[in-house]
Amino acid sequence: MSKVVTFNRTGGPEVLEVVDVQVPAPSANEVQIRVKAIGLNRAEIMYRNGQYVIEPVFPARLGYEAAGTVEAVGENVKDFAKGDPVSVIPSFMFNEYGMYGEIVNAPVHAVVKHPENLSFEQAAASWMMYVTAFGALVEYGNLQAGQNVIIRAASSSVGLAAIQIANMLGAKPIALTRTSEKRDLLLKAGAAAVIATAEQDMVAEINRETNNVGAHIVFDPVGGPDVAKLTQVMAPLGMFFQYGALDSRDMLVPVFDILGKHLTLRGYELFEITTNPEKMARAKAFVTEGLRSGKLKPVIDKTFTLEDIADAQRYMEANGQVGKIVVTVN
Amino acid sequence: MSKVVTFNRTGGPEVLEVVDVQVPAPSANEVQIRVKAIGLNRAEIMYRNGQYVIEPVFPARLGYEAAGTVEAVGENVKDFAKGDPVSVIPSFMFNEYGMYGEIVNAPVHAVVKHPENLSFEQAAASWMMYVTAFGALVEYGNLQAGQNVIIRAASSSVGLAAIQIANMLGAKPIALTRTSEKRDLLLKAGAAAVIATAEQDMVAEINRETNNVGAHIVFDPVGGPDVAKLTQVMAPLGMFFQYGALDSRDMLVPVFDILGKHLTLRGYELFEITTNPEKMARAKAFVTEGLRSGKLKPVIDKTFTLEDIADAQRYMEANGQVGKIVVTVN
Repeated sequence: MSKVVTFNRTGGPEVLEVVDVQVPAPSANEVQIRVKAIGLNRAEIMYRNGQYVIEPVFPARLGYEAAGTVEAVGENVKDFAKGDPVSVIPSFMFNEYGMYGEIVNAPVHAVVKHPENLSFEQAAASWMMYVTAFGALVEYGNLQAGQNVIIRAASSSVGLAAIQIANMLGAKPIALTRTSEKRDLLLKAGAAAVIATAEQDMVAEINRETNNVGAHIVFDPVGGPDVAKLTQVMAPLGMFFQYGALDSRDMLVPVFDILGKHLTLRGYELFEITTNPEKMARAKAFVTEGLRSGKLKPVIDKTFTLEDIADAQRYMEANGQVGKIVVTVN
Repeated sequence: MSKVVTFNRTGGPEVLEVVDVQVPAPSANEVQIRVKAIGLNRAEIMYRNGQYVIEPVFPARLGYEAAGTVEAVGENVKDFAKGDPVSVIPSFMFNEYGMYGEIVNAPVHAVVKHPENLSFEQAAASWMMYVTAFGALVEYGNLQAGQNVIIRAASSSVGLAAIQIANMLGAKPIALTRTSEKRDLLLKAGAAAVIATAEQDMVAEINRETNNVGAHIVFDPVGGPDVAKLTQVMAPLGMFFQYGALDSRDMLVPVFDILGKHLTLRGYELFEITTNPEKMARAKAFVTEGLRSGKLKPVIDKTFTLEDIADAQRYMEANGQVGKIVVTVN
C-alpha cells in the first residue's frame, strides 16, 4: 500500500486527502518510483481549484515534480534499474499521472537520472524551473554572454532559475520585483541588479543598468499593460517571452517598438520542450551539467511532510516564498 | 545630363522638381543604370513629407525601386555588364541613393538581373513587394502547402504579392479589406477568400474559411486594437508579422491566445532581408524563379511619366490603387 494525495471535489487546500491505495505495477514505458521528495507547482493549485487547462475527474490525483529511487520498471524500459536515483520532469497531464504519493508510476520520457551531488529535495526542486527557464533563454532565446535579460517576478522559482542560467552563460540578469522587500534575497540569489517596479522608475533603471543598450531577452510570467514599458527598453531583435498570464488583461504592445526594433513576442510553455524529444534531450543535458558543476543550485524555501500537504499548498497560496516549496516523503 | 527628381523642402507632391544634373561615373561597387521604369513606394511619400525614419538633407533625392539597363559599372563590379536588363531592390537609404531619374547610380548589392520575360514596368513593380512578402511568409514564416494565411490590407502591392506567393506555395490566402469594393479585384488577384472587415464578422468568417483550423500566418501592415481579434483565429504555433504600423495605437494582444497557442508576434521589415547577403540571395532566387515561371506576376495599377511624378505621388496618396503605380522613363 502507498499513501497518495487525492481529492473528490474542487476547492481550497482542505479538499486534499491523504489515502492508502494499491499502486499497480508499472505498465510498458512506465517507471515506478519510491518518492523521497515532491516539488510544489502552482499548476497543482489551479487544478485543485478547477481553474486549470484540464478538469479533474474524481477521485483526482495531482503532482508534476518528484525525486526518489526506481522501485520497478515496466516493459521496454531499458535506461533505468531498481535503485537508481531519479527525478520527474513535468511532461504529462494530471488525468494521466500524479506525483503526490509514496509510490507512483511515471512515464519513462518524464524520468531523468539526476547528478549524485544533489539531495532528493534539491532534485525535486530542480527540473520544472530549470527546464522552463532553459527553454526560453537558451533553446529559443539563444542567450549569449554579455547580453541583458530582464526577469519579471524574479523571486518565483522559475525566476530564480533564470537568474542562475543567465549567470551560467555570462549574461546579465536584471530582476524585477514589485517592492524592495525581496531585494537582498534576489541579489544574494545572483541578480546583477534588482528593480522594485512599484517604487522605482523601471524604464530609467533598466536603461541605466544596460547602458541604454536595452534587454536582449525579457522573461515574463505576468503580461498586462506594463508590457508597453518593457518593449521600450528592449534591444534590437530582442525576444519577449510570455510564460504565465498572471495578468489576464490584454498586453499593450507598442507597434513602433515591435516594428522599429524587429522584436519578437512569443507565448512559451514548458510543455513545448518536454513533449519534443530533441529539445528535451538538450534541456536534460544542459540542466544536468549545470547541476553537476554547481552553477545551477536550486533554492529551497521551506519543506513540509506529505501529511501536511494542505498546509504546504496554503503556504504557496500566500505567495511569501522565495524559491521552491518541497514536500518530503518518508 | 540626366533628368532627376529632387526636392528642397518637405511638403506635398508640389515640392518635387524635375531637374537636369550631371550624374557622376559609378564608384567602386556601384552600377550606373539607364532607368526605364520606376516603382512608387509609400516610403517616398513619408520621406517627402518629413515623416520617414531619416530626415532629408536638401537638395534631396528619393526613389527605392527601378528597372532599366546597365549603362556603366564601377570598380569591383563583375556580375554586370553594359546593356544588362536589371532591377533595383530597396536596400539603401535615400540620403545615399535615389532611383527617381533617367540615369542613376545604385549599390551593386541592390541590383539584380531580372528574367527576360518581364517588361521594365513589371520589373520595376516586382522586387520590393515580392521580397517583402517573401521575408515574412517564406524566410521567417516557413509557409507550407495547405496552411492558411491572413493578408491584411490585401489590395496593397505587398498584399497582392503575398497572395501570389501563398498560391505559389499551395497555401490558402485569405484577403482582408475594409469594404467589399475591392472584393472582385482581390478574387481575380488570387485570393481564396475575401473578408470585408467593416461589413462582415471577421472572426466568424475566418473560422469558416479555415474550417476552424485558424491562420498559420497573419501578415499585417496595420496593427491596432483589431490584433486581438486576429490572434483569436490563429492556429497553434502561428506567426503574426507586423510590417507597417499604419495604426499608431498600441496593439492589443490577448495573453491567453499568445500563451495557450504559443504564438509568435514579430515586427518585420524588408531591410532585414536586403541587408543580409544570405537572406537576400534566397529572396532573389525565390522571386526570380516565381517571375520566370509566371507564378508571380506583378499587378500594375497605372503608369505615369517622369514629368508627372507629382501626379503619380498624388494618385498614391489618394489610396485608390490596386497594385503598383509605375513611372515610365524615356
